[in-house]
Amino acid sequence: MPKFEGMSKEVLDKTEWVAIVTWDGQGPHLSATWGDYIRSIGVPDNGPIAIPAGRMRQTEENLNKNGRVELLIASKSVDRPNGSGQGCRITGRGELQTSGELFDKVKEKFSWARAALVVHVEEVTNLLG
Amino acid sequence: MPKFEGMSKEVLDKTEWVAIVTWDGQGPHLSATWGDYIRSIGVPDNGPIAIPAGRMRQTEENLNKNGRVELLIASKSVDRPNGSGQGCRITGRGELQTSGELFDKVKEKFSWARAALVVHVEEVTNLLG
Repeated sequence: MPKFEGMSKEVLDKTEWVAIVTWDGQGPHLSATWGDYIRSIGVPDNGPIAIPAGRMRQTEENLNKNGRVELLIASKSVDRPNGSGQGCRITGRGELQTSGELFDKVKEKFSWARAALVVHVEEVTNLLG
Repeated sequence: MPKFEGMSKEVLDKTEWVAIVTWDGQGPHLSATWGDYIRSIGVPDNGPIAIPAGRMRQTEENLNKNGRVELLIASKSVDRPNGSGQGCRITGRGELQTSGELFDKVKEKFSWARAALVVHVEEVTNLLG
């Protein structure tokens, strides 16, 4: 079963922005990117998600320590059986890549990017039942 | 100086959704709410932010352990000097209230809420320069 399908795929297609959370032993660090950014690079149904990294120094530092990352995406204009609006929690591993195919794609679209934050998707969970 | 003013106030007025991050010793927990929800209750320029809590059990558990919470809000339709779009990181203390003025306000608008997640705002930081 693809990780993004049905409702979660629709949320991915519509989310205006994406919250990015990494953490070390002390606490979480929150960063974000635009939905248009990840869609312009393209997200296969099982990931990975490639995010242009401008600064993201703390994110990088945290990922070097434990490699875990969580993303949150949401859109009010996705229909649920019981209402409208859905959010999805995406868990996985993250790494900053500065070479390779994904980095090249990111750099082509976003010349300011110093790296591609590549999120290997493990699980996608809908927040609303 | 008010915590929400200028650009951060505009992001608060426009954000479609709000990411909510709490954490215990193990790692972060991500939850979310709609921007319309917090705006319908009203956010004073220095907070607090009141969020209707339906489930949010893990959020509650984490807050009982350390009380820290971070929120992320963002909107593409906020103008910066160098472009458009802005995101803000909001740090503070959080608690679930099941009585009092804020809980009553929340309950009046959202009958399904079991509590008000009240975020006492300490700092608001723009993510983009």
